[in-house]
Parts: sequence; C-alpha cells; structure tokens
Amino acid sequence: MATVTDTPIRIGVMGCAVIARTVSRAIDLAPNATIAAVASRSLEKAKTFATANGYQQSVKIHGSYESILEDPDVDALYIPLPASLHVEWAIRAAESGKHILLEKPVAMNVSEFDKIVAACEKNGVQIMDGTMWAHHPRTAKLKEFLFDSDRFGQLKNINSCFSLAVDEDFLKNNIRVKPNLDGLGALGDLGWYAIRAALFANNFELPKIVAASPGTVLNESGVILSCGASLSWEDGRTASIYCSFLANVGMEITAVGTNGTLCVQDFVIPFEETRATFTTCLKSGFNDPWVSRPTEHSVKTEIPQEACMVREFARLVGEIKNKGAKPDGFWPNISRKTQLVVDAIKESVDKNCQQISLSGR
Amino acid sequence: MATVTDTPIRIGVMGCAVIARTVSRAIDLAPNATIAAVASRSLEKAKTFATANGYQQSVKIHGSYESILEDPDVDALYIPLPASLHVEWAIRAAESGKHILLEKPVAMNVSEFDKIVAACEKNGVQIMDGTMWAHHPRTAKLKEFLFDSDRFGQLKNINSCFSLAVDEDFLKNNIRVKPNLDGLGALGDLGWYAIRAALFANNFELPKIVAASPGTVLNESGVILSCGASLSWEDGRTASIYCSFLANVGMEITAVGTNGTLCVQDFVIPFEETRATFTTCLKSGFNDPWVSRPTEHSVKTEIPQEACMVREFARLVGEIKNKGAKPDGFWPNISRKTQLVVDAIKESVDKNCQQISLSGR
Repeated sequence: MATVTDTPIRIGVMGCAVIARTVSRAIDLAPNATIAAVASRSLEKAKTFATANGYQQSVKIHGSYESILEDPDVDALYIPLPASLHVEWAIRAAESGKHILLEKPVAMNVSEFDKIVAACEKNGVQIMDGTMWAHHPRTAKLKEFLFDSDRFGQLKNINSCFSLAVDEDFLKNNIRVKPNLDGLGALGDLGWYAIRAALFANNFELPKIVAASPGTVLNESGVILSCGASLSWEDGRTASIYCSFLANVGMEITAVGTNGTLCVQDFVIPFEETRATFTTCLKSGFNDPWVSRPTEHSVKTEIPQEACMVREFARLVGEIKNKGAKPDGFWPNISRKTQLVVDAIKESVDKNCQQISLSGR
Repeated sequence: MATVTDTPIRIGVMGCAVIARTVSRAIDLAPNATIAAVASRSLEKAKTFATANGYQQSVKIHGSYESILEDPDVDALYIPLPASLHVEWAIRAAESGKHILLEKPVAMNVSEFDKIVAACEKNGVQIMDGTMWAHHPRTAKLKEFLFDSDRFGQLKNINSCFSLAVDEDFLKNNIRVKPNLDGLGALGDLGWYAIRAALFANNFELPKIVAASPGTVLNESGVILSCGASLSWEDGRTASIYCSFLANVGMEITAVGTNGTLCVQDFVIPFEETRATFTTCLKSGFNDPWVSRPTEHSVKTEIPQEACMVREFARLVGEIKNKGAKPDGFWPNISRKTQLVVDAIKESVDKNCQQISLSGR
C-alpha cells in the first residue's frame, strides 16, 4: 500500500465506456490513485463524461487518445476501449511510457496480447487487466480454502458461470455483439470471468484440453451470444464454464475437492459492496452426505473490489515509479492464460466443438 | 392418497442393499403402504436384515428371490438389486403380477429397460424408479417456477451435479464399481440424478445432442468413477452435468431462464428431512445485475421424500388393485429418457467424447 508520503498515481481514463464510470469512482476511492485526465474521440464527449462523473476541475480533458498519451501529468492509463482497439492503443500507451490498466478481454487473441506485453516489457510499464473480483479480499479467502489440502484436498471439478440477460437494444447496438469491436462477444465479456475462475482454482495451470459444448448461440454476424465449454487437466481435474447474454443473472462457482466443497453465488459482482460471502462444506460420507453441513463465511472489504483493483495497480506502478522496481509479471501472465483459453474455446466453437489441445501454447 | 378404507399396499423388499434400509423406513412412514415381506439370497441374511431394521413379526422372510415372487400376500416389490440383475428380476416380478419400485439406474441400457417395460405392460403392473427427489413437495415448487413464463421465462441453461467422495473400500469392493454389477458406475448411480434434473427442467424433452466432457475417470475395469457431459436441445437450450465418486459432496442445480434464475444446493438429498429450500432470482439488468436479490423459499414436507415416493407408488398400485385403473405411463417414460441419456453419455465416453445424436431414439 502507498506510504503516506507517496503522491497518488495519476491515472488517465482513455475512453468513456459505461464501465469507465465504475472505474472512475474506484480511482477516487483508492487511497493511492487519482484521476488526472480523461480522453475521448471528441472534446465534447470527454467534457460531458467528466461532468456526469463529478470529476474535479483539475482533471484534464483530452479530445483525442493521442493527446492523453502525450500528457506528462499522467502516470497510467485505464483503457476501456473495445477489444479490437487494444492492440493499437495499449502498445501506443506503453511506448508513451504509460502504465496500463486494460479492460478485458485484453485482446482479440493471444498473439495480439503478446505484442502488447512485449511493448510493456520493452518500456518497463506495468500492465494489469480489469478483472475486479480477483482483487476482492474474499478471493484471497477462497484461495486459502481451495489450496488447503486438509479442508479442501485436491480439486476435482469446478463449475463456473456468468450470465446476464441483455435487452433488445444491446443485442442490436452494443459493442459486445459487433465483430469489429468486442468481437469475442459473451465469451470475451462474461466467459472471461468464468475461465479466470477455473484457472484460479487450478493455480493458473493451463488445461490440457478445451472443448466447446454443443449449443453455442451466435448472432447473425457470428458473434457468440451464449456458449459453454469443458476443460480438462492432466490428472483428472475438470472444469465446465458457461456464459450468456441471453439468460438471467448467474455468477456461480461450485468447486469440489477430495475433501471439501466451495460455493460462491456472486463471484463476479458481490451482492453487497462492503462484504461478500461464500459457502464451504467439509468431508462428507457416502451414506450421510450432510454429516457436515455447509458453512457460510463472510468477508468484509473497506473499499469496493474495483477500488481494491485500482489500489493494487497503483501500488505496483508506485513501486516502479518511486522505487525503481520492475513491473510485476503475475498479472499479465494470468491475463495471457485467460486469453489463451478464450481463444481455444472460440476455436472449438468454430470447429464444431472439436477438442483443442493447449500443449505447447 | 389412499382412502381410509383401503388396505395398505403390501410391499416386499427384494434384496438387502444399504439403500433398502432407507426405503424400508419410507414404506413404514408412507400412510398407504406396509412391509409385507423381505427376501435375500439366504434366509439368514433376510432375517438379519429384518431384525436390524425392526421389521414386525408379521413380515415374511424369504430365503430366495423366487420365493418372494410367489408370495400371494405381496402386491409390489421394491428391487434394490444391482443394475445388471434388473432385467432378469424385474421381468420375473412383472410376470408374477407384482408391481415394481425399481432402483436406479433402471437397467444396464435402454434396450434392457424396454424389455422390463414390455413385461410390465403385458402384465398390467406399475413400474416406477427410485428417484426420491422427484417426489419431494419442493420439486413441485421448482417445477412451478421453471415453467412460469413470467418469473423464469424460457430455460436457457441448467447445470446439475452430484458428487460424493467414497472411501478406499468402496472403490475396491462396492457393487457400483464392478462392471458386472452396477457397471454404469458413478454415471448410473449419481449422474442419473443430474441427468434427471436436466430433463425435468426441459419438461422431459430429450436433448438433441449429448457429448461427454474430456476428463472422464475410469477404474481399472473401465467403470466410470467421474464424468461430465454437455446436452443441447433444438432451440439453444443447454445443460451440463457432472457426477463423481471422487469429489466431496455436491448436489447443485443452477438453472437460468430468460427472466429468472433458480438455485438448489441439495437437490438429491435435502439438508433437512422436514423442509427443503431453493433460491430464485428475478429479472436482472446488464448494468445492475443484483437489482433483484436472490430470494430463499422453504417447502415443508410431512414425511421424508423417500416416503413421498412410496406413497405415490402405493397410490398408483392402489388405483390398479382397487379401482381397476391402468398403470401410469409417466414414470416409466421418464425412467426410459433418463436411461437413454445415461446410455448416450456412456457411448460418448467410449468414443472419446464424440457427439451422440438422440434423434429417433
């Protein structure tokens, strides 16, 4: 965490997507970050966004993305642009020496993301993706349970899903259903989280095989609106994921280990902002499955999970800026793995659910 | 339900499996049924079982399965024999004019089950499988919600799982891991329930395609210890199921419709015997997923779900015995569909997760 004497990391918001409102508030709430600037493709749009989100007068308004890249009073950029624009603008941001908080999906495919990461490495800037739930204190508690060889044992299966029913307007006009914008559709937008959960429970080991499930729903442009997939690892560990723009809200994780069971009902966005719960169930018997009843655990958080994310990002940027540290490799590494699995599911969807091997990827 | 003047249906217990203890108690608790006899392959074993389960002196003890078939004071038989023996003994029971409550899986494959059903039809006897949860009053409430076009809308996806971690002795010696006994392993024993849940939520419409997920675990005899599968229907409805003898307890249903979400944590065996809960969540927005928070519902039951099952079975038998009604076709019909999906998943497992079409089956 920032020490009292460190100045807050100055973050520029590059694009005025709806999600940028949430992250603007998060930057405000993070103790070690501040909003320094905002950019849109027009000055007017950037001004309107700044006003609507109560930005202070001191926040600089940029009428182009190029302009915010050149702003010397910006340490880092939050980039919520459509995925298809990430490869261009994240690389330009890195080349401008800006640290990057990049919305997910991080790119249209892993080879694009590799170019982004190469640019970040070359320019010594931090990159982290916008997976908020990873930063909730609850997630640390989930990890504790999942990697407790007594209470949970060894993972056998995790099921994770994220669905949100969108409206007609969204299905016609939202960037998330346009092949040339967020062309990975529900898989990139919602499936990203479910995949991340499956990787998280497997200590970020990549699965050996990925197969899309029959029943993928595409729109007329071929963008995924709904799909499921199965993942399997070397030693019999498995996962199934599901994501959909067409089904009502679901954000569940169910993980079963040799000794324990973990259930989370709201893993992407907790029901409440200040605390989040999960349920564990310890070793059961075949003839008396509920000999140990599920126990609910509650984890408080001082600031919302998105502010925890900004705080962690700003902390890493601060280490680099103020202490000459190197960028942290953990976050881009897990972004890459998530994107790899997104790519493999997409490939399997395109090949009628064929099994895709991830060996060597 | 039986009227006061009807005499209870006299049930014979054919085999002394562990599950027969639960069902013996259920017969006792069902207001319209009574235990009339018990049979095992030896008189000694049958006697021991009768004593251990507190059977009344009036209960007849049979030292062979043939003997109980000939008992004129038995209306119906509860058959918890290993699945491989069902085709022989269920047919012999039907030919002896006994109604049949048959443990699941109902047979080793659907062609065997078709022979059993043909024998039942020929002899005018009722057949029902031992899927207890189908008879819990909660299940009627789940159905109400799932088929409420306002609150739930149209089903999009259901995920159902049933896992129970067994011990070393079970993995070596239990009939459920022996190819010549309950040779369908975890798929027949646990997967049966998860498949039934998927069919239930789809109003028992058969899926179009079934595919096993990569990562099936077999024992050295080729019996399934753990597997998952994906199911898909014509109009983009999907299901995923998971079953395992190797993972700690999980008995979850998560169903998402266009308007609503349904979660059940203990669908196979409720946490409590006298009531059971489920959670629903109504229409959510993309930007505010928890605008409607999940609501917990509780459903009481006068008698345990297994006694509800016996009560329904005895009611149908009573209709036939006392009122000349015809056997009810609903229960064998859904047993057959469940077995068909079991068979298709088994086939897909054997063919390296190939998609199996159920058209015309």
